[in-house]
Amino acid sequence: MMRAGPSQEEIRRHNLGVLLRHVHLGGPTSRAELTTRMGLNRSTIMALTADLTAAGLVREELPRETGRVGRPSLVVRPESARVYVLAFDIGVDRLVAARVGLGGVVLDRHEATREREDFDLDHVAGAVVAFTRRMLARTRPDTLCVGVGVAIAGGVRSSDGVVRYSPNMGAVDVPLGAELKERLGLGVPVAVGNDANLGALAEQARGVAVGCRDLIYLHGDVGIGGGVIAGGQLLGGHGGYGGEIGHMVVNTGGRPCGCGSRGCLEAEVGERALLEAAGRFSAQAGRDAVRAVVGAADRGDVLAQQALNRVGDWLGLGVANLVNVFNPEVVIFGGILREIYLGSAAQVRSRIAVDVLRASRESLRLRTPALGDDTILVGAAELAFAQVLADPLDALARVGA
Amino acid sequence: MMRAGPSQEEIRRHNLGVLLRHVHLGGPTSRAELTTRMGLNRSTIMALTADLTAAGLVREELPRETGRVGRPSLVVRPESARVYVLAFDIGVDRLVAARVGLGGVVLDRHEATREREDFDLDHVAGAVVAFTRRMLARTRPDTLCVGVGVAIAGGVRSSDGVVRYSPNMGAVDVPLGAELKERLGLGVPVAVGNDANLGALAEQARGVAVGCRDLIYLHGDVGIGGGVIAGGQLLGGHGGYGGEIGHMVVNTGGRPCGCGSRGCLEAEVGERALLEAAGRFSAQAGRDAVRAVVGAADRGDVLAQQALNRVGDWLGLGVANLVNVFNPEVVIFGGILREIYLGSAAQVRSRIAVDVLRASRESLRLRTPALGDDTILVGAAELAFAQVLADPLDALARVGA
Repeated sequence: MMRAGPSQEEIRRHNLGVLLRHVHLGGPTSRAELTTRMGLNRSTIMALTADLTAAGLVREELPRETGRVGRPSLVVRPESARVYVLAFDIGVDRLVAARVGLGGVVLDRHEATREREDFDLDHVAGAVVAFTRRMLARTRPDTLCVGVGVAIAGGVRSSDGVVRYSPNMGAVDVPLGAELKERLGLGVPVAVGNDANLGALAEQARGVAVGCRDLIYLHGDVGIGGGVIAGGQLLGGHGGYGGEIGHMVVNTGGRPCGCGSRGCLEAEVGERALLEAAGRFSAQAGRDAVRAVVGAADRGDVLAQQALNRVGDWLGLGVANLVNVFNPEVVIFGGILREIYLGSAAQVRSRIAVDVLRASRESLRLRTPALGDDTILVGAAELAFAQVLADPLDALARVGA
Repeated sequence: MMRAGPSQEEIRRHNLGVLLRHVHLGGPTSRAELTTRMGLNRSTIMALTADLTAAGLVREELPRETGRVGRPSLVVRPESARVYVLAFDIGVDRLVAARVGLGGVVLDRHEATREREDFDLDHVAGAVVAFTRRMLARTRPDTLCVGVGVAIAGGVRSSDGVVRYSPNMGAVDVPLGAELKERLGLGVPVAVGNDANLGALAEQARGVAVGCRDLIYLHGDVGIGGGVIAGGQLLGGHGGYGGEIGHMVVNTGGRPCGCGSRGCLEAEVGERALLEAAGRFSAQAGRDAVRAVVGAADRGDVLAQQALNRVGDWLGLGVANLVNVFNPEVVIFGGILREIYLGSAAQVRSRIAVDVLRASRESLRLRTPALGDDTILVGAAELAFAQVLADPLDALARVGA
């Protein structure tokens, strides 16, 4: 905060990242458009584009059609087929893997179901390595992996990728980042992040909250996770464990929670709460069982409707608290909370109407993810791209390109 | 976020602000020290200091004693006696006014009690103008007022200083900023902010949380306000109404709250909750009545102890929720919450032990304000100084200096 201004070289590197971010998030963009958006002159944009082209990160081409008279402005396009990251979403029930090209193009995607059992690092790392081999076998020789991003439903120490806790996966202090870096042996950075945090970043970058600076992404898996972007910045907290919305107590003395407390949002709104209230709980239930309850309620099943109303009421209370605290523009319901919210929107809205101060209610929007079931996966890919976008040339040098 | 880098002139102006901020917050600082801290070379520091000296914001002098051999480095000192702001803390029970010199020196301070009645803009503005006249009558002719900062217990639209709501002061959509700017007629900016937000900034700038990037300041007046700094940045939210921690529901179906809901933190922990539980409520009670309950509990009064335990338990629950959500380094209890926290620390800590995830509990500190009863007032002064520190020369030009 108290530092002096940047040097010319720092500014150039920053600008390379800004330009690359424009085409990564916005797709092919004309030089003229980049000149306008970045507030730089044409020759600077030309020099920056030349550097990124030489590095193999973008290429320039004539636009297909311009409809205008005169020399058309060249279009700058990310090298999506050449430069990519590997992204993994390690959930309680499933493992999703993808190869994602610069620009956010999913080039390859695999999914496997997981057993609900205590976290076994060797087993998880083995599955990640197997998916990676399969994906790399399909790549052309001139392609370049620039990073790996991993999302997991737990609290992650960002400095070294240690999963500090994950009550629903039975993980405590698991060195996931280091293990994957060694076993993958790709010589690229491996970044690990909390799934809901990455979901928030993904929906802001490419989803329903593009342009929003204040948003909350709530993710329901077995537990409830939260990712908060406040003032344009992901809420991390002092140690990086911020956003544990699932362990906000909404019902003092309520249902026991996996964290050891009672009445947490997760205990009142999570998968188990809904299934038990609907008389349908079994330990291996999962996402389809939740969908079945919502479907049954929709078809008039009274027990399912009551269960959904009850859960929706607690969900509404939790969201109301968060809206009073954060005054967000958008709240997004992802994972199984998508179905639960859609099935209980009346309860959620009614709680918000009663419990939220008017000024914070005025501009609030409630939404479901635009990226669907891939929100977390896209977030993991963006985590991997983050270093490249921060300083493209430095990132390439570090992966030996 | 997507903008290009700054120009040389922008960097110079930024650096002038950074240097001024150093001496404003850190006090007299040698040129050598500024060179080290700002990472700039000596000639740049000399040029920046010369500009600020010419503008009358700092002066350079020989240090009193160095104890070293050789030519001593000149000390840069803020012109505290010359450049000042006016700061006002408009609370439910009292109005505090101060003239505060650059560097944070309180040069003059006045306080008046207020009646608890619906907010009367004419009356409040009149009191502010009267205090201002009294303070200006005592200033020397060569002094310069560079801004006015006002703190109020309510939700404030920062763009124009309209108090959108203040349930405990009976204010709705009151154009406080514009009214004060016109009636004061000083030709300087008048900034209005939420009291707890300004308290958070004050304790971070000059109080118990210097150097902290993640902190929560809880302020108890009649109601409970909250100011959150997350990742070094004040939590504002989409419209600027973030941090309404007092209206987080901790006890569903609990005590009615002035906001229209039930069981809000403010309803369970505020002045009225404590005094009613202790059998001591009266409408004009105030801060001394709260202190009396805490004192009685300390002397063994069972009813007072029970009241404090009850309130402390809800306070602990509210803080636990906030710690799970924000993972702060410090939580600060200000206003009447200072006394309530000190009288119920065991309950608060016990709730945190049960309800907060271990990773977020490890590094948490609970504290009372270092600035005592003046936390909010200091925050209002810092709000007024903020524009000057952002761009000193531009700010001076705008006040016609």
